[in-house]
Amino acid sequence: MRIIDENTLEDLALGAAVLGTGGGGDPYIGKLMARQAIRDYGPVEMYTLDELADDDLIVPTAMMGAPTVMLEKMPNGDDIINAFESVGKYIGKPIKATMSIEAGGLNSVVPIYVAARKRIPLVDCDGMGRAFPEIQMVTHTLFGISATPMAMSDERGNTVLMETINNNWTETFARSITVNMGAMAMIALYAATVGQLKQAAIPGTMSYAMDIGKVIQKARVQEDDPVNTVREAVGGYLVFKGKIGDVQRRTEGGFAKGDAFIDGIDAYSGQKLQLSFQNEHLAVRIDGEYRVTVPDLIALLDVDTGEPITTESMRYGFRVAVIAFPSNEKWRTPEGIALVGPRYFGYDVDFVPVEERFG
Amino acid sequence: MRIIDENTLEDLALGAAVLGTGGGGDPYIGKLMARQAIRDYGPVEMYTLDELADDDLIVPTAMMGAPTVMLEKMPNGDDIINAFESVGKYIGKPIKATMSIEAGGLNSVVPIYVAARKRIPLVDCDGMGRAFPEIQMVTHTLFGISATPMAMSDERGNTVLMETINNNWTETFARSITVNMGAMAMIALYAATVGQLKQAAIPGTMSYAMDIGKVIQKARVQEDDPVNTVREAVGGYLVFKGKIGDVQRRTEGGFAKGDAFIDGIDAYSGQKLQLSFQNEHLAVRIDGEYRVTVPDLIALLDVDTGEPITTESMRYGFRVAVIAFPSNEKWRTPEGIALVGPRYFGYDVDFVPVEERFG
Repeated sequence: MRIIDENTLEDLALGAAVLGTGGGGDPYIGKLMARQAIRDYGPVEMYTLDELADDDLIVPTAMMGAPTVMLEKMPNGDDIINAFESVGKYIGKPIKATMSIEAGGLNSVVPIYVAARKRIPLVDCDGMGRAFPEIQMVTHTLFGISATPMAMSDERGNTVLMETINNNWTETFARSITVNMGAMAMIALYAATVGQLKQAAIPGTMSYAMDIGKVIQKARVQEDDPVNTVREAVGGYLVFKGKIGDVQRRTEGGFAKGDAFIDGIDAYSGQKLQLSFQNEHLAVRIDGEYRVTVPDLIALLDVDTGEPITTESMRYGFRVAVIAFPSNEKWRTPEGIALVGPRYFGYDVDFVPVEERFG
Repeated sequence: MRIIDENTLEDLALGAAVLGTGGGGDPYIGKLMARQAIRDYGPVEMYTLDELADDDLIVPTAMMGAPTVMLEKMPNGDDIINAFESVGKYIGKPIKATMSIEAGGLNSVVPIYVAARKRIPLVDCDGMGRAFPEIQMVTHTLFGISATPMAMSDERGNTVLMETINNNWTETFARSITVNMGAMAMIALYAATVGQLKQAAIPGTMSYAMDIGKVIQKARVQEDDPVNTVREAVGGYLVFKGKIGDVQRRTEGGFAKGDAFIDGIDAYSGQKLQLSFQNEHLAVRIDGEYRVTVPDLIALLDVDTGEPITTESMRYGFRVAVIAFPSNEKWRTPEGIALVGPRYFGYDVDFVPVEERFG
């Protein structure tokens, strides 16, 4: 068991933002919410799957939508509690704990807010080991766990509950409702027992994020090379350094989609990198050649601070480093690649593990 | 108490199609479904509100979507049962009976299908006394009854349940889900007690539809003027006779919208009628002047048979009569006009009661 208090929350949010590959929502707003809940209701206990009973029921909580919207429209907190309680009421069994469905800026800390307010534990795992843009893109899907009953709530007090025949239908309905709710919704879904999660989830993601965050914080104090510190902490590779030129964005069907174009500096001078995103960073092309794609992780870091940059905060002139690191092995199976590989997102290229290109 | 068997079902469906003002779904498919259910499970008992106890809980059932789609995609029956049972399970109280939320081709008989399969009664009332295209357009809304908890089911087995802060939000969410479900969904909503319905519903709509249907059937046998028979049965006015010229249609946001242009014949020769619709017939202009609008009822009848013509079956060359008749007085209040009057649908004209223009 580990305790999430105001300090470890900072570490966790920072580390999860690296794993979030630019997505999972704005880390600042999530941190504010979770910090306030810890102040109001006390620290949160985080348990590993092995510390819980196999038949304990876990209901993950998250934000869904285009992170660009969240900068202007802050969740009010009651919305996520409504979603969580709606699933509990629907199932009609006691819920032992909540968990993150993805590592990412907001979605790693939304469950901490819920855990603090409901006085329940957080489970040290997630369903991605990173962030992905669509509902069905969790390891739960690979192991036959249904996303439904899923509840969605908005800040006005509306709640939508669904039971679907598969997780792709969940995504279809939930995406429309997210758009109706103002391009953002708070959600509870993928209820599962600890026994199921031992097989289906990615264990230890939250403590891993905490450890990454701690290393980065320490490096800042010691004035080590921040990008290299992050790279080492995640076991990754430096892919590029450059200055952001054009960023083309569109909010499409409830997603923040687009491409950033980065001009190389230092050793990368003269090269041009294209970073494609859909809420998360999905693919890197250098001078037109694919170099990294999903499911492997792409992080964009501020060259000077090592701070991860979300897809919605990329701006012209930022000096950035691009690092890449291996995804969890569950994503590298044929079923995993079919669910979240480059071809699903429309990139006409086979997945090549990042260590084969940069190792 | 009246019994709905195969014969009275015919009368009811025919009469309701007149009240349906071109909408409420295809009467043929609805009749097939309800008839089969009566054959399989026996006739349905229909009670007036006064024959039930004030605290009996009633859950209406219906189809939602663009009727144009239903011609190609028949509901499978389990979908509407799923929707009905989902609301019951959610509320957690026994449901005494079902009812029509609107009079119309399909939506007057969908509840008969449910009543037959579930062996429960039908209530002799509805929420419109006609058909309207949007969820919030029921007299229930005027009396503060919530559309939610509302359940929506498709033929694949997906179900969506919602709790909204008002009936306009129900419409917003439900319309998106209907589009996702293939432009058609089976729904259960507007749960209310008999005590509430005595105030909020339009009583006697189903027996009224049955009586209208019976008169039309009888006139056919006696070879009376069928259009005049219908007109007399509903206490209405002959507005126009003509031949359908152009029909402009678009399926937009889950609605079948458009305009039909009708060239006058006989006494109306040389005049041109424009009939605007959104699932239902909403407004009649003759030579550019508004002559009838919602909430009053507009029925398009086959000149030779008196058969009501739905918005989706209007075709070039059909010889038709247009009749109009007064809506229930609940719709003629300022609140009723705000909810379903001409300006809500974008027609820049005040409502004028049909009897003032044609009486």
